[in-house]
Amino acid sequence: MIKVGIIGSTGYAGAELVRLLLGHKNAEIVWYGSRSYIDQKYADVYRNYFKLVENICRAEDMDALAEEADVIFTATPQGLCASLVNEEILSKVKIIDLSADFRLKDVAVYEEWYKLEHKAPQYIEEAVYGLCEINREKIRPARLIANPGCYTTTSILSAYPLVKEGLIDPDTLIIDAKSGTTGAGRGLKLQNLYCEVNESIKAYGVASHRHTPEIEEQLSYAAGRPVTISFTPHLVPMNRGILVTAYASLTDRSLTWADLQAAYERQYGGEKFIRLLDEGVCPETKWVEGSNFVDIGWKIDKRCGRVIIMAALDNLVKGAAGQAVQNMNLLFGEPEDEGLRLAPVFP
Amino acid sequence: MIKVGIIGSTGYAGAELVRLLLGHKNAEIVWYGSRSYIDQKYADVYRNYFKLVENICRAEDMDALAEEADVIFTATPQGLCASLVNEEILSKVKIIDLSADFRLKDVAVYEEWYKLEHKAPQYIEEAVYGLCEINREKIRPARLIANPGCYTTTSILSAYPLVKEGLIDPDTLIIDAKSGTTGAGRGLKLQNLYCEVNESIKAYGVASHRHTPEIEEQLSYAAGRPVTISFTPHLVPMNRGILVTAYASLTDRSLTWADLQAAYERQYGGEKFIRLLDEGVCPETKWVEGSNFVDIGWKIDKRCGRVIIMAALDNLVKGAAGQAVQNMNLLFGEPEDEGLRLAPVFP
Amino acid sequence: MIKVGIIGSTGYAGAELVRLLLGHKNAEIVWYGSRSYIDQKYADVYRNYFKLVENICRAEDMDALAEEADVIFTATPQGLCASLVNEEILSKVKIIDLSADFRLKDVAVYEEWYKLEHKAPQYIEEAVYGLCEINREKIRPARLIANPGCYTTTSILSAYPLVKEGLIDPDTLIIDAKSGTTGAGRGLKLQNLYCEVNESIKAYGVASHRHTPEIEEQLSYAAGRPVTISFTPHLVPMNRGILVTAYASLTDRSLTWADLQAAYERQYGGEKFIRLLDEGVCPETKWVEGSNFVDIGWKIDKRCGRVIIMAALDNLVKGAAGQAVQNMNLLFGEPEDEGLRLAPVFP
Amino acid sequence: MIKVGIIGSTGYAGAELVRLLLGHKNAEIVWYGSRSYIDQKYADVYRNYFKLVENICRAEDMDALAEEADVIFTATPQGLCASLVNEEILSKVKIIDLSADFRLKDVAVYEEWYKLEHKAPQYIEEAVYGLCEINREKIRPARLIANPGCYTTTSILSAYPLVKEGLIDPDTLIIDAKSGTTGAGRGLKLQNLYCEVNESIKAYGVASHRHTPEIEEQLSYAAGRPVTISFTPHLVPMNRGILVTAYASLTDRSLTWADLQAAYERQYGGEKFIRLLDEGVCPETKWVEGSNFVDIGWKIDKRCGRVIIMAALDNLVKGAAGQAVQNMNLLFGEPEDEGLRLAPVFP
Repeated sequence: MIKVGIIGSTGYAGAELVRLLLGHKNAEIVWYGSRSYIDQKYADVYRNYFKLVENICRAEDMDALAEEADVIFTATPQGLCASLVNEEILSKVKIIDLSADFRLKDVAVYEEWYKLEHKAPQYIEEAVYGLCEINREKIRPARLIANPGCYTTTSILSAYPLVKEGLIDPDTLIIDAKSGTTGAGRGLKLQNLYCEVNESIKAYGVASHRHTPEIEEQLSYAAGRPVTISFTPHLVPMNRGILVTAYASLTDRSLTWADLQAAYERQYGGEKFIRLLDEGVCPETKWVEGSNFVDIGWKIDKRCGRVIIMAALDNLVKGAAGQAVQNMNLLFGEPEDEGLRLAPVFP
Repeated sequence: MIKVGIIGSTGYAGAELVRLLLGHKNAEIVWYGSRSYIDQKYADVYRNYFKLVENICRAEDMDALAEEADVIFTATPQGLCASLVNEEILSKVKIIDLSADFRLKDVAVYEEWYKLEHKAPQYIEEAVYGLCEINREKIRPARLIANPGCYTTTSILSAYPLVKEGLIDPDTLIIDAKSGTTGAGRGLKLQNLYCEVNESIKAYGVASHRHTPEIEEQLSYAAGRPVTISFTPHLVPMNRGILVTAYASLTDRSLTWADLQAAYERQYGGEKFIRLLDEGVCPETKWVEGSNFVDIGWKIDKRCGRVIIMAALDNLVKGAAGQAVQNMNLLFGEPEDEGLRLAPVFP
Repeated sequence: MIKVGIIGSTGYAGAELVRLLLGHKNAEIVWYGSRSYIDQKYADVYRNYFKLVENICRAEDMDALAEEADVIFTATPQGLCASLVNEEILSKVKIIDLSADFRLKDVAVYEEWYKLEHKAPQYIEEAVYGLCEINREKIRPARLIANPGCYTTTSILSAYPLVKEGLIDPDTLIIDAKSGTTGAGRGLKLQNLYCEVNESIKAYGVASHRHTPEIEEQLSYAAGRPVTISFTPHLVPMNRGILVTAYASLTDRSLTWADLQAAYERQYGGEKFIRLLDEGVCPETKWVEGSNFVDIGWKIDKRCGRVIIMAALDNLVKGAAGQAVQNMNLLFGEPEDEGLRLAPVFP
Repeated sequence: MIKVGIIGSTGYAGAELVRLLLGHKNAEIVWYGSRSYIDQKYADVYRNYFKLVENICRAEDMDALAEEADVIFTATPQGLCASLVNEEILSKVKIIDLSADFRLKDVAVYEEWYKLEHKAPQYIEEAVYGLCEINREKIRPARLIANPGCYTTTSILSAYPLVKEGLIDPDTLIIDAKSGTTGAGRGLKLQNLYCEVNESIKAYGVASHRHTPEIEEQLSYAAGRPVTISFTPHLVPMNRGILVTAYASLTDRSLTWADLQAAYERQYGGEKFIRLLDEGVCPETKWVEGSNFVDIGWKIDKRCGRVIIMAALDNLVKGAAGQAVQNMNLLFGEPEDEGLRLAPVFP
């Protein structure tokens, strides 16, 4: 039984980790960490877990946790994981960090976009970017996993095969992303109130969202050269789900839907959690809700020589907690889909 | 492996049966029945099942189905199950009817409220009302289960212990129920369009909703005498969930919260799917979403000598498909919670 | 031109006052009071007013305001208006208080339910309860108006004619109310976050909501004797709207829908803002959204000898700002519907 | 008093025309045309108009209507207006067509994208494209107005000044649009059901939506040469509102926010219904709901040499009925904003 500690268990991503791990045959949560609810019953914070979780919230004490757990998930704001991690901890326990601290290889880029001094740059090199479908073999032996962002997972997975195979010009890539409101977290901010979000849609973080360099870095690896993209997130009045609509110029205007399908199949053919949709089908976020799936579809706009790629996932599952569990499974030799076989909930 | 056939698999309750049964260790769906989508891929009707269900929709041929299946779920409009069932079928296969055909013991009451002639009144006596927590032992050996309605399950379970123990006057019982829109089904009706439901709430079927006599019949058994209640359903702009707020006069004004708790504990103490909330906690439908739980809370209004009982469940799970699977588990000697151990999804 | 000051202009009710007064032919807002946004542009707080309102938010200085305005609306938390009002202010300016400070005639009841010491009990007697359809003639000459609560307006208007004419037993009255989330205000509370409200419904303040004594007091006047009721509010995932479903025993079981209609017509026959629905029609909150209408329907439950009354209004309009403007019109001799002729917005 | 007839008054755009015209000082609706509800009370179809509209729905008889009305709005599916219009009608009455029949000057393009034979191509030349801010002077004397589409109005108005002044390369223009569900109409389609739309987002009509050539035609006029764009609409779980996020390469990478502002000001400086947002502000659809405003903001993405333009409007108002009334005002010499001075409703 894998003993799991969660730092930040009372955020939405933390609570989703709990949901998934309760259904995992070989994992047990031993530490519900929380800064705000110490000594309170976890099930009083998330009443969906009434009668399912009897634990009390505990402080975010990573040293103590390292003694009790086999793996620690840090579902916390940026900067916390980097400020706590050290060699002693890493020698005892695996860490899966759901924050951005170890996602970017260039510490200067991190500090510029996140406006934070990085407290543990010495581990950046070692950390493995936990996008399972791309980095599976690097993940298995790692100690420290940088679990990808929700927008990032959707964006990279949708564009990766076409960039990798040179079918699109990556510098023309424009990613227009739409997210449900759990992506904004459980913090008390005016813009997250029901009446401010409901019945409205808006863009935010335009040309400045912090997931941008993360997307660029990973697509640069695929392209074999630096890539610069436009990325615009939007807030949608729904709880869960990310939809990415991405636009790029084809390198060859004669490319067909089937040509691109072949590329997607080559890269993702055996992937359980990536569903390549049939021709003419556009993904909808509701079709993946509650599950670890990413649905990907695409269409060629002949008139403009562009492809429009669409991808949907549940930001709390494949975009956060589900991918984190998938990483845990890889780290501990579990079946990769253990705890993640849930069918999407519709409607 | 229990072989399952679903008649009406393309309605919302049918689709939820699929979701739950995909996670059931010892059940396999062998027949996806549908009147509207015959010969189409089931996963084209519900794209959340893309790559999960490869089956094609088949006609609603109960005779053929009885040869292939061990149990048939009929998730169809009223009247269909009664028109199809016969001795030969019942000799081969168990039937769990999610419609109202066999819920009421008095065929005249059925015909009055449903405006339908009952086609198989000879099976009414034999049919067992499948409210598992109340009728568990009668369910196990049955051939034909009348799976309770969604409003009914919530209403009966919330009031049953207090009626049974004579703590409330059942004739003062007023049930004000609120339902998510999946309860209205997937039919093409103007009042079910997004823009007609969204941002609005209304009562409907006032003093005439067909779940009323079903609630009355079951509470009459508990009371040991005929009971007449007021029942008002409302449509709420959300997908899933039923909340019941029930009002009744206490038979003794000195009764306390703890006195009622004791009654609830006596009736439901060991029940896994009934969660009796702590004092001061009101149920919310989101806390049970996607799960088979019923959450029940209550408060005494001293000034008026009334109790206000509140109960929440997911209308597609404990209010339909989940309870149906629970019944199947009882019929086939499976653990009662097999396939139903899902934690609620929040948010 | 009536010069208007608003204290609490940056809450939802305050912002709705602005919307309505911008369309009022004979009113001009001279003071946008706010505790939190002093010196900021009002249109930066509510960007819907960009290019429509150029004013800056000012402090909540009632003395200064009394020099500049003809009428002051206080759309503030309980206690503020009572703490500010005095004889000098009342000699210069009319006050329409949207808080509860002057709604209850018995100061002890106020202090018990609101857990506040009343700072100006000497004005309670003078204050007129601003339910225009009931107290129109008392309102016209008043200096201080206690603008009714949103739940209260809906509840009283729906039951008043039947209580007044003795057609129902007021002690059997049970009011089950459902409100949109603007009713919870713009404060930063966890339970008001989008993801906490969306896709869920719950009761709150059960048997303890502070609008209860306000409803009881007004219905007691109608009944000619003290009345005690049960009142349960619910939070609904929508922005605006209150629906009341009220249950009461008829004093004579032979009363018909038409008998009750006659009573409603006698009390409300000429009222522009009360729409008595046709037989068989149930109100929906969306049909009154954005308007000052109250829609009332009712149905007799013969089997139980009860009437079920349903009423819908927009909590920010007839339930707050619209009624306040209606009161202002009465105070200043304007046509009662000036600024309030807006048709409901659907969908 | 302008006498108005509406063909298609029972669709959402038709119902919105009613709402706006009820508040118009100098217009009176004399004909509520409807194919589906002939002889029924209009207020039974849209109960928000109970007590406000007493009229009965009448057939869509344009000849008879031309005798009674000064102006006819056709808020009907494509093809109907073209099949009814003729010289005699146009000699008696002005026509404002909310369908696409007269929006495209090239009949072949119309027939290709709409898969319809055009029944009155002889009037295409005469028809004026009713985008008031661009074509104001041509509209005033016209007989036949082609009222622009909702996506089109948002798209064109947002990009027009930058295309016109050569600040962006129009062939790089990518328009990612998001619409509320009223845009899908009131027809009974599975994909418009509440539970199918709610809690989900999807793209549709990718690279094939019929508003594409309309946007291209108008931007081609601005550019002085043919323009080809990518346009992708999305369905958002909300009632009203369109948000456009448009991407284009700047022709000069040194252009600043202020340079673009100057261009917008030159083109739209005096326009009442176009609100150019301050630097750093992104539009939200809720800020314009119920009003005739278009809010436009933009941001420069220095790293990519692109501008991201964002624009929001209410699809039923400025995107349909509001613009139609604005056109009517121009045709009849009314103040352009008569009936359209409504402040946006928030929340």
